[in-house]
Amino acid sequence: MRKQLMTFLLCCGALIVSAQQPADYVNPFIGTSNYGTTNPGAICPQGMMSVTPFNVMGSKSNKFDKDSQWWSTPYSADNNFFTGYAHVNLSGVGCPELGSLLLMPTAGELNVDYHEYGSGYKDEVAHPGYYSNLLTKYNIKTEATASMRTGLTRFTFPKGQGNILLNLGEGLTNETGATVRMVSDTEIEGSKLLGTFCYNPQAVFPIYFVMKVSKAPKQAGYWKKQREMKGVEADWDIYSGKYKLYTKYNREMSGDDIGVWFTYDTDENEVIEVKMGVSFVSIENARLNMNTEQPDFNFDKVRATAGQMWNDDLSRVQVEGGTQDDKTIFYTAMYHLLIHPNIIQDVNGEYPMMESLKVGHTTGNRYTVFSLWDTYRNVSTLMTLLYPEKQLDIIRTMIDMYKESGWLPKWELYGRETLTMEGDPSIPYIVDAYMRGLRDYDIETAYEGMRKGATTPGEFNLLHPDNNDYMSKGYVPLREQYDNSVSHALEYYIADWNLSLLANALGKKEDAKLFRERAMGYKHYYSKEYGTLRPILPDGTFYSPFDPKQGENFEPSPGFHEGNAWNYTFYVPHDIMGLAKLMGGPKKFVDRLQMVFDKGYYDMANEPDIAYPYLFSYFKGEAWRTQKLVRELLGKYYHNAPNGLPGNDDTGTMSTWAIFSMMGFYPACPGDLDYVLTSPTFNKVTIRLDKKFYPKGELVIESAHQTPDDIYIKEVTAGGKKLKGYTISQQELVNAGTLRFTLDSKK
Amino acid sequence: MRKQLMTFLLCCGALIVSAQQPADYVNPFIGTSNYGTTNPGAICPQGMMSVTPFNVMGSKSNKFDKDSQWWSTPYSADNNFFTGYAHVNLSGVGCPELGSLLLMPTAGELNVDYHEYGSGYKDEVAHPGYYSNLLTKYNIKTEATASMRTGLTRFTFPKGQGNILLNLGEGLTNETGATVRMVSDTEIEGSKLLGTFCYNPQAVFPIYFVMKVSKAPKQAGYWKKQREMKGVEADWDIYSGKYKLYTKYNREMSGDDIGVWFTYDTDENEVIEVKMGVSFVSIENARLNMNTEQPDFNFDKVRATAGQMWNDDLSRVQVEGGTQDDKTIFYTAMYHLLIHPNIIQDVNGEYPMMESLKVGHTTGNRYTVFSLWDTYRNVSTLMTLLYPEKQLDIIRTMIDMYKESGWLPKWELYGRETLTMEGDPSIPYIVDAYMRGLRDYDIETAYEGMRKGATTPGEFNLLHPDNNDYMSKGYVPLREQYDNSVSHALEYYIADWNLSLLANALGKKEDAKLFRERAMGYKHYYSKEYGTLRPILPDGTFYSPFDPKQGENFEPSPGFHEGNAWNYTFYVPHDIMGLAKLMGGPKKFVDRLQMVFDKGYYDMANEPDIAYPYLFSYFKGEAWRTQKLVRELLGKYYHNAPNGLPGNDDTGTMSTWAIFSMMGFYPACPGDLDYVLTSPTFNKVTIRLDKKFYPKGELVIESAHQTPDDIYIKEVTAGGKKLKGYTISQQELVNAGTLRFTLDSKK
Repeated sequence: MRKQLMTFLLCCGALIVSAQQPADYVNPFIGTSNYGTTNPGAICPQGMMSVTPFNVMGSKSNKFDKDSQWWSTPYSADNNFFTGYAHVNLSGVGCPELGSLLLMPTAGELNVDYHEYGSGYKDEVAHPGYYSNLLTKYNIKTEATASMRTGLTRFTFPKGQGNILLNLGEGLTNETGATVRMVSDTEIEGSKLLGTFCYNPQAVFPIYFVMKVSKAPKQAGYWKKQREMKGVEADWDIYSGKYKLYTKYNREMSGDDIGVWFTYDTDENEVIEVKMGVSFVSIENARLNMNTEQPDFNFDKVRATAGQMWNDDLSRVQVEGGTQDDKTIFYTAMYHLLIHPNIIQDVNGEYPMMESLKVGHTTGNRYTVFSLWDTYRNVSTLMTLLYPEKQLDIIRTMIDMYKESGWLPKWELYGRETLTMEGDPSIPYIVDAYMRGLRDYDIETAYEGMRKGATTPGEFNLLHPDNNDYMSKGYVPLREQYDNSVSHALEYYIADWNLSLLANALGKKEDAKLFRERAMGYKHYYSKEYGTLRPILPDGTFYSPFDPKQGENFEPSPGFHEGNAWNYTFYVPHDIMGLAKLMGGPKKFVDRLQMVFDKGYYDMANEPDIAYPYLFSYFKGEAWRTQKLVRELLGKYYHNAPNGLPGNDDTGTMSTWAIFSMMGFYPACPGDLDYVLTSPTFNKVTIRLDKKFYPKGELVIESAHQTPDDIYIKEVTAGGKKLKGYTISQQELVNAGTLRFTLDSKK
Repeated sequence: MRKQLMTFLLCCGALIVSAQQPADYVNPFIGTSNYGTTNPGAICPQGMMSVTPFNVMGSKSNKFDKDSQWWSTPYSADNNFFTGYAHVNLSGVGCPELGSLLLMPTAGELNVDYHEYGSGYKDEVAHPGYYSNLLTKYNIKTEATASMRTGLTRFTFPKGQGNILLNLGEGLTNETGATVRMVSDTEIEGSKLLGTFCYNPQAVFPIYFVMKVSKAPKQAGYWKKQREMKGVEADWDIYSGKYKLYTKYNREMSGDDIGVWFTYDTDENEVIEVKMGVSFVSIENARLNMNTEQPDFNFDKVRATAGQMWNDDLSRVQVEGGTQDDKTIFYTAMYHLLIHPNIIQDVNGEYPMMESLKVGHTTGNRYTVFSLWDTYRNVSTLMTLLYPEKQLDIIRTMIDMYKESGWLPKWELYGRETLTMEGDPSIPYIVDAYMRGLRDYDIETAYEGMRKGATTPGEFNLLHPDNNDYMSKGYVPLREQYDNSVSHALEYYIADWNLSLLANALGKKEDAKLFRERAMGYKHYYSKEYGTLRPILPDGTFYSPFDPKQGENFEPSPGFHEGNAWNYTFYVPHDIMGLAKLMGGPKKFVDRLQMVFDKGYYDMANEPDIAYPYLFSYFKGEAWRTQKLVRELLGKYYHNAPNGLPGNDDTGTMSTWAIFSMMGFYPACPGDLDYVLTSPTFNKVTIRLDKKFYPKGELVIESAHQTPDDIYIKEVTAGGKKLKGYTISQQELVNAGTLRFTLDSKK
């Protein structure tokens, strides 16, 4: 309730001042409940830095605690105990990581135990690039903003003793260990280990930081939680197992659970600012980033710049009509789209090279946080359409990662391959862009990397560990009860299908044939008995006893990853007609797919089935189901509220589903140039295409809604020409100029 | 038994090769049992580096464990489980500190848990600058040597997998926290926090290190003990609470309990060497120290240089006659004398300045490890006599510490004042040297520092916190049950007496009078009822109920620190005649002092009473008691065996007692130029005095023992002139040329 109210106030405030720009519609609280795992922190588009309120530890008054459950976000709208600002965070992911360098202001006596120094808060405000609250325990107003690589916080203290704490021991990451050093009375520097994302124990990496306070403290020092001692030693050491304050020491402090404190005598409403530069290369680069992007302390300037960057990027799409909430949902989804992948290179172009973490250098943007199993499904297409320049650097980064490490990325995080999820998602991610015409990168090297993943024997294959079975049998048998074998294979099929498209485009006819054939291997899994895909045992027989529904609610399911057979059976987007044939024809297909929705098997929050609603449109007379379901799903899962995402945003994948769906078209099959159409949410959507890539320049989508019930497509014209069917190709779309929907309330 | 045997073999071996040099007599195992807290590690005279076998953790087979009791030495002759070489150690102290950077070779599968990788050992050999053993679990021969600032270890591996581990999590110190980084495949660098000596929580300081292995490893990585996780997280993280190996990461690793591992494929008897440079200023300096003192890997050269340095220093005194054990006891005591204080400056002259740890620069030697409460009693005098050049730099260091921090040192440790024990021992330490004629330092500044300590009100006085009482009442009343008030005051009296001597020498007559009078304040404490000193309550009455024997065996005693009233009552060395008068005359004094020995109240291991045996010689007809008791105490407490020291060596204080006593003279009162004579152990002692300071150049002490029972002095001539009484002044001694004792077996 509180958040919704604040958003309302924010909108009103903005309305009074000026006409609303896209960033003004964004509600960064969307997705901060219901496991959306987004956060309201201050960040620039694709910025390395985010400064995020951290409220997931230290108090039983919180609903969720990072240490007592599986928890992957630094902020929850359901919590209420603030323990500082986390610097550099992940948005919309499903495993705990980053969310460290916790900066906290307090007032009164110095206390470095977060259980005790944490505070309730109120008056939360969040805009793109800005967050603020009031700490009720201390009556301190806190504000945060960010540049691309630096954070800036502003604390307004009451009169008395004010304290600033940097906690290097806690954070969302499960890695520990930091070292810090006082450089001067106002500056510290250090590094902290991060990683172990999704409990991959070797995927670790350091973050380097430099922090500067705007006012020299009265006193400063470190703290460290001391090891628990035993016996006689414990009797002598009053700090055994406790936090010890170091008051007279200013050289290196290292440890698992350390921090830095500054104390001040503050006047009423005295403002102290803290800026932090980070780097994934070195402390020197962290300082260079800080001094370059924030040579002084100027909160308002940094905030204004961040806001402008958001407006620049978000204004690629202008929407008219729809409700205020629709616009907020849409622009917040756009905002979420542009958080990851984010840049990793420092202002001097240096970045940690894939896996070695040696220092590389780039002249463009080097990206990190590649949740590709998610994003290849729709984010890639949207980035190619809306932000082709960014997409080029994203793809170049992926190819460079192959050059550096020998493998294309799967789930890359700050230079480390976490190997989270399955398949080889770089292939469809890149091929989709290539097929749509985005080609200014080294496609031959990319192809080499893709082919290596697709053809290297399993024992030497980082990305396809079960490639021996797959290559010899055409499928992956179930060798362990919960080895997700069918899910693996389905990813290989879509990747192979994309690879065949690319091979063909590059004139590699034999490869094209090979991979096209492999892509059809899904048919092995089709069980006539159940009408679903079904795991196959090593002896070639189907797995029994089989229950296609097993796998709901994250219960483990033989053969399927985080889902059941129904969530995966239709995930052969490259051969929907082939699947329909297996099933006994279009009607059977449509009935079964409709049943998935009717019986509640559909999972809006898990990627393999998110395109399901669009599949109806491939079948004559069934497109109305798409239009109806998409509207229903938008209404059911997407809100202008903290719970306004269906689940983990998956670095923008869920948000992208809404963006496309609200604009009226969706890329239901990666690599396939046809979008499936649906009825737009808005009366008018203006996409400012980058003319360098799309000479037509502007795409206007018009759809006059007479009533809110006008959700069924009667006719669509592209550039004045009526479309046959309910798909539109990439070329048609970007050259249409105007896409006009005629809608009706009847199907 | 094993150690004694090895020493025997060592002696024989040396005898066969050549005439024994002084270092050949040294048995570094003396003091490694019976709480002597010395160690057999490789070290140069006053070297910053020592490389010491660490055997005080990890196994129940050890008699002593550093974590289950009060334990202050990295090595015990009573233990048997070796967990590596500790780099930089303390010798002969009573609180745990240093003893970290634990370097361990193992064979077979990599295991980083010291409980499991530790090993039994045999074939221990120790010489000055050299230590070796054979690890029975692995059949690895280990050898260690050292230069002034660097260590070098040599491991001879069996065929198979060999591992080298650097454990940065464990050590004798109670501080934790380290950071380390791989610089190349053969070099690492880092820092570790040390300190909290005697549980002074703020006296912490970093050690910087660079380590290089002579052979590139097959693989290398880090380990870190992971924090214990709870609930769901613990289920996912297989390393929760366990050691995790980092196999693919080579940037900074920081934490409480971390380490570095290297693995090799080794041939039979393959030798791998590891050198380590340290600094207390910076990693750069640690590397500079390493590259300067050990540009290559040359174990034999480093060892030979260390041995030569020891021979150069030990040969200041040549002894003849006496048993082989006598010589070993004597030269080992000399060896212990020259371990602390040790240099702290790097090869470029940089050192951490007192308390600030800012970088200072010196052209001479800068010293550290000042256990002054111990060493002012006899070590200062011996250093002035035997090593005046070293003593000058020691005193210059102390004065510089005053300039840097505002206070002369009390118990300084690597740039931090630990405030261990009581009083103001810098005063007698320096004054003793000054009065004996060693004066090439800034005595006016030293005096300023001494006077500041002596006269600053208690609330602003680091060294004399109870100065308000002391200055106003002339004594320190007992304000808390165990505040050691009498012990405090006794230290102030001897310091004041010394300060009065210096004031007088500097022409400060008023100060001289003031401090001389203050020095007599001990009389307040004299209780006629008990014939001892006795605590006084704030109201001026004596503390009751009073038991002069309370305080034995480290039980707490009101008014007295680690002792009872008898251990302190005679500690007014500057006014023995005055005390005798209080007691009712010489006979009463002598009877009571003799009773202390007869009833077993004398504590050879605690400094305040160690000069007691010499006090008899101030009284006519009683000097035989000195001669008899000193011989008895030497025989009872000093042996050529691990238990061959009476207790903590106290950075050479116990050893110095033996050195003086075996040579035949002892400085029974700091600042008093008279030595008390006793019968020498040896037939001939030749002291090669430094002619720059003592123009006579050589002092020969002759004493023909007809039988071992000839312990009683019949006559002493100095330069052919018969001495009256049983004392000899500094001037008489250093100008005597020859001091000849005539002895007899009858008193």
